[in-house]
Parts: sequence; structure tokens; C-alpha cells
Amino acid sequence: METQGKVITCRAAVAWGAGEPLVMEDVKVDPPQRLEVRLRILFTSICHTDLSAWKGENESQRAYPRILGHEAAGIVESVGEGVEEMKAGDHVLPIFTGECGDCRVCKQDEANLCERFRVDPMKKVMVTDGKTRFFTSKDNKPIYHFLNTSTFSEYTVIDSACVLKVNPLFPLEKISLLSCGVSTDKCLWNEGVGAAWNVADIQPGSTVAIFGLGAVGLAVAEGARVRGASKIIGIDVNPDKFPLGREAGISEFINPKESDKAVHERVREITEGGVECSFECAGSIEALREAFLSTNSGVGVTVLLGVHASPQLLPIHPMELFQGRSITASVFGGFKPKTQLPFLITQCLQGLLNLDLFISHQLPFHDINKAMQLLHQGKAIRCLLRL
Amino acid sequence: METQGKVITCRAAVAWGAGEPLVMEDVKVDPPQRLEVRLRILFTSICHTDLSAWKGENESQRAYPRILGHEAAGIVESVGEGVEEMKAGDHVLPIFTGECGDCRVCKQDEANLCERFRVDPMKKVMVTDGKTRFFTSKDNKPIYHFLNTSTFSEYTVIDSACVLKVNPLFPLEKISLLSCGVSTDKCLWNEGVGAAWNVADIQPGSTVAIFGLGAVGLAVAEGARVRGASKIIGIDVNPDKFPLGREAGISEFINPKESDKAVHERVREITEGGVECSFECAGSIEALREAFLSTNSGVGVTVLLGVHASPQLLPIHPMELFQGRSITASVFGGFKPKTQLPFLITQCLQGLLNLDLFISHQLPFHDINKAMQLLHQGKAIRCLLRL
Repeated sequence: METQGKVITCRAAVAWGAGEPLVMEDVKVDPPQRLEVRLRILFTSICHTDLSAWKGENESQRAYPRILGHEAAGIVESVGEGVEEMKAGDHVLPIFTGECGDCRVCKQDEANLCERFRVDPMKKVMVTDGKTRFFTSKDNKPIYHFLNTSTFSEYTVIDSACVLKVNPLFPLEKISLLSCGVSTDKCLWNEGVGAAWNVADIQPGSTVAIFGLGAVGLAVAEGARVRGASKIIGIDVNPDKFPLGREAGISEFINPKESDKAVHERVREITEGGVECSFECAGSIEALREAFLSTNSGVGVTVLLGVHASPQLLPIHPMELFQGRSITASVFGGFKPKTQLPFLITQCLQGLLNLDLFISHQLPFHDINKAMQLLHQGKAIRCLLRL
Repeated sequence: METQGKVITCRAAVAWGAGEPLVMEDVKVDPPQRLEVRLRILFTSICHTDLSAWKGENESQRAYPRILGHEAAGIVESVGEGVEEMKAGDHVLPIFTGECGDCRVCKQDEANLCERFRVDPMKKVMVTDGKTRFFTSKDNKPIYHFLNTSTFSEYTVIDSACVLKVNPLFPLEKISLLSCGVSTDKCLWNEGVGAAWNVADIQPGSTVAIFGLGAVGLAVAEGARVRGASKIIGIDVNPDKFPLGREAGISEFINPKESDKAVHERVREITEGGVECSFECAGSIEALREAFLSTNSGVGVTVLLGVHASPQLLPIHPMELFQGRSITASVFGGFKPKTQLPFLITQCLQGLLNLDLFISHQLPFHDINKAMQLLHQGKAIRCLLRL
């Protein structure tokens, strides 16, 4: 590859300040260092974590100039020293939460937050040397990285622990959606499906209640449907979400605004004692409590997926945990990012899971600010950008 | 058996009012009905749940006259219709939280709170007909049952789902301690050991932190030691508990009153990043939060065992569950009462677990009020009564 070992100059969408439109400009991308990989990004999309960093919602996460983006698919341009598992030309997905394979967490079967490369919105430089691989082409000013990935650029440099090689026969455009799983204020694919499979471990015949029917709630429904859940109850204050919910496999709907009793009472009636699994995907403390109480005492598990404001405590009394109900949460759906994601990809490609349900818009890369607005205004579930 | 099918008159310790001394008197015990068993109790002891009901701490649980007691061992006197699994003369343990084997919970591998016979301090009559099997010998007044068992009586009638047949070669006196697991304000054997084995699933080499070194904390330590934990850290404000803790396998101690930093910081230092499992056995909200923060993010699990006052919420923010830490609780140590207890009994008899550590007093049955006081005043860990 003629670019190997050299600086590449390419187009990137650079964030220069909190909430300012991204600037499409030429940037220089250094070659990958030891155990790093340089990728050509072909598709990327935007999710809430990008939006949040762009808006600078959390002061400690503000760092500009920065290249955001983490949900994408691409091709390896070159690899740094010591990278054995992939080579130039390989099809890959960047993974915002990595897997080194060697730390205490990676060595555990049931844990997935790698000690070295787990998702960290504060991180802005490479692990190897604490420096960036991006520079402005004008004056060589360093540009910060984001979420281990920085995919709003034609080329990016990523730790190999955060890159997954995929079968070149797979359609990159489609599976790029699986590289992240976070969308529209909520966790999407890996989160939803993974929560249903890995965390709640839904069994054939299980009953399920899903609080909040955004993208993540729909993904949970997909996961529950594929696992053979006998009853999937969807709860949302917005009945416009019910038709899409029905497509995803939800069989019964409750609109809390129109219910004459507490939602958990309704759910417990429908399921004769409560569901095996409930999912809080609404980001509401009230929904979280209702979700907890909706489960069958003795076997019930509540999985937390929604994002909650900071000052509140879990609306659960310690003694209530003794009633045979449990509550848990997951990141990246409990999937080990590199070793387990391929299974999810295969399931999607075999048509078991309906991925198309979630693509609402497609735009060229240079329209990225328009895509940001679509998401910001809640008009897009997912907008795919082509580079 | 000449008593079969007949009413038996025997001695029992009857609670006549909240906090009043138990009255040792003659009571009539009806024959067992369908799927019930009548037992001759040989040993019983007292735990916090008995004390609490005796004091009438919870108004809704007050019901007198009542025969308390649930931790015991005995011999089957006769069985009711339909009981196939045991017969007169069998050695048995009464089990306060039963296992019907047939409900939704019993059919799940990992759940143990049987829908029909789970522990229920409100319950005071038999399931079959809503009546009692105890009557005063003087005026035939019904006497209420307690916790599925009522063992403060020479004879008692129990649902067969709440009776475990044991090998007649086992020393009943010793294994009677295993029938309950709740003692001295805290959960003891099944709880502690079960929490270590079934709930936290401690692995060889795991690191463990135990907050509160009462009976349950010691039992957790025993369970952790047997599982091969590499480091067991004990935390208590009372250093008098450290010597017994050392016997139970605790290798390092922290007295929060003498620590110059937060306990979780100390634990994380000792274990280079936090323990795999922490156990809250102190019944303190502060300890619960420290226990949660003491675990390694990514793999940490906190098991709740202490009893907490009602109005407080879990001192954990919903978003903290996303850091790869989880919190859970268990009843009866997560053991299925009938199908899994025999395994625990075998472990104890093989000397793997040190049961003798917990027997502090022995008294004859007629001294039951003295035994109640010993426990009430915190002087006894466990007082065994001989009938």
C-alpha cells in the first residue's frame, strides 16, 4: 500500500467547540503505532454519545478540536507493529469499547468491560504514547480522538483491541450499525438484543415487559421475539410508537396515560403474576420502579438500559431485593466486543433480526451537520453517512 | 404408630402476646391432612425472625396465641394422604421456605422462592384448609402457626413441601442448625455460605470483602475459604470480632474507625483495583455503599445480606450499574430448600465447613425464655434447645 508508513491527508468533520457546527476540513492522519490500525472509513452514523460530546454536555468531556464518531465500518489501510490478526484490505468495524483479551475482565467469561480499552468518554489520546494521530493540515495542531474510534474522518487510527475484522462477504453498509449500538438517546442493537439475550437470558415462553419503545426498546423486542418469548408487553406514553412495536414483535401495549391502574398492576394481571424480565428503556425513574414491580417475584429480573439524570438514587429499597427480584444493567449488551459480536452479526445477516427497521435516513458525509440536526431533533432513528 | 390419625397432646411454648414470656403448656396437635406431615421435634433453636415475631415488631405479623420456632430437627410421627417421599420414623428438617417442585419458580434452575410455600411471616394457618392444627388443651382455642414450621412444640404439623428427609446417620442435633440459616439479627449458614457459593459464585483465587463480621459474615468467610478465595478481607468496627474471623478464613481486617481513608479505597489498594465479590452483612446503608464501591468495576458483584430499615433507598445511582458492577441479594442463600440443602449438609458433615464455630449455648426446652433473652441481649450466636 503506497500510503503505508506515511501521513495521509484526508477530509474529516472536526468539532471546534461545544455545539458549533462541525467543520469539514483536511486533516493529517499519522501512521499507526505499535498495536494500532489505520482505517479507511466507508460508512458512519451518529448517536447520542456523539451528540452529547458535540454539545459539551459534560464539562469534563469537553476537548476541542476533536473528531467525533464511533459507529462505522471500513477497510484496513495499514497496521502498526505487532498487529497479527488483521492486515491491509481487511473489512473491519471500529469498536468503541475494546477487548484486549489479556486483562482481568477479558479473562472472565461473563464480563465485557476491558480494563484497558473499555468505553471512556474522557479519553482523548492514544494509549500507546498519550498523543494524537490527527493534526490540522493548516498548522499541524493536534486534534483529539473520541471514544477509541473517531470515525467522522475518511481515515482514522484505532487500537487494534478496538477493531473487529469481519467476513468480507458481509455488507459493510448494513453491519456498520452493529459496531456501536447506541442511538437516539438510547442504546440500540447490541444493547437491546444483548440485554435480551446475555443479560436477561430470555427463554422460550418467557414473558417480557419493555418500558419505552424507542430504538432500544424495539431492539429488546426483536431479541425477545427471536428467543421465543410468549408475551411481549410494550409500554409507552406515545401510542405512535405502537405500530413499529408490533412489527418488532410486541403483542400487547399499555399507555400509562390511559391506564386506570399502575402499569405494574396491569402487567401482573396480563401475565398472571408478573413477567420474567422487564426492561427500562425510558430513562425515567418512575418507569424503572414500575419495571421492577412488574416482574414476578421469585424469578424476575429488571434490566436497566435507559440513561438517568445524575442526582437520583435507585428507587428500590434494599429489602425489596430479598423478594426474589433483581436489577441489573449492561454495557454493549453484555457482549464481549471482539469475540462475541460476530455471532450477533451472523444472526442479523441470516435475517433472524430485522436491522432495516432502524435505518430511517441516509446522507453523504458532507451533510453531517444536517444528520446531527435530524438526530438532535428526534427526527431520525439512524442516519447512515457514506464517505 | 399408635398415635397415627389421632390428636396428640404435648408440651409447647406458646406466645400469647407481643413481648410476653412464652408459656410452656399442653397443646393438642391434630393429625396431618393431605400432603402434610406431623413431626416429633428433637432440637430447635431461636433466631431473629422468631424474636421479631415474638416482640410483634411488625404489626401486620402479630397473631396470638402462636407457636413460633422454625430452626429445628426431628422425626416423622405420621404423614397425611398423598405423602410419598417420607414415612413415620424418617429423620427430617423442617424448612421455613418450602419447595413444591411444581410451580413456576420451582421449575426454574436458578430461583428458590417457591410460589406456594416461600417464607411468609404473615402466614399463620395451613394452606390446605386455612385452619390451624394446634389447639389449647384447656378450651380448644386455635393456636396460630408460624413460618410454615412452628417448632417450639414437641409435635408440629408441616406441609410436606416444607420438610426435608435426611440420612438417619446424620447427627440431627448438629444439622438442625442448617434447617434455617437465620440467627442473631443476621442470616447464618445457608445465607452466608449460599451467598458465597450460589449468588456470588466465588471462584478459586477470587478476592472477597465482607462488611460486618457477625454470624453471617463468618459464614460468608467459611464459604469463600472453601471455594479457594485468595484474599478475604473482613471489615468491622468491633475488633473483638477479628480473632473468630481469622478462624473462619479472613486474612486481612479493616476497622473503619481506625482507617484514615474510605474503606473502599483501602480495599481497592489491597486488591489492586477492587474485589470480585463484596458482602454487606452489617445492615448499614453506609456499609452497603462502601461494599459496592469496593468491587472491581467490570467484574464486581455485591451481595446484600444485612437487614435494612424501611424508608431508605439503595445508595446507588442508576448509572453506576453501567460501570460493570452489580448488586443482588439472596434468600436461603439461593439454595433450593429441598433439592439443594442435602449438598450443604454433606459439605458440613465432611468437615469442609466449620459448623461448631456457631454454637454458643445449649439449654433444655423448658428454658426457652432464657434462650430468648440470651439472643435478645446479643449474648448468644446460637442456643440449641433439646426437647
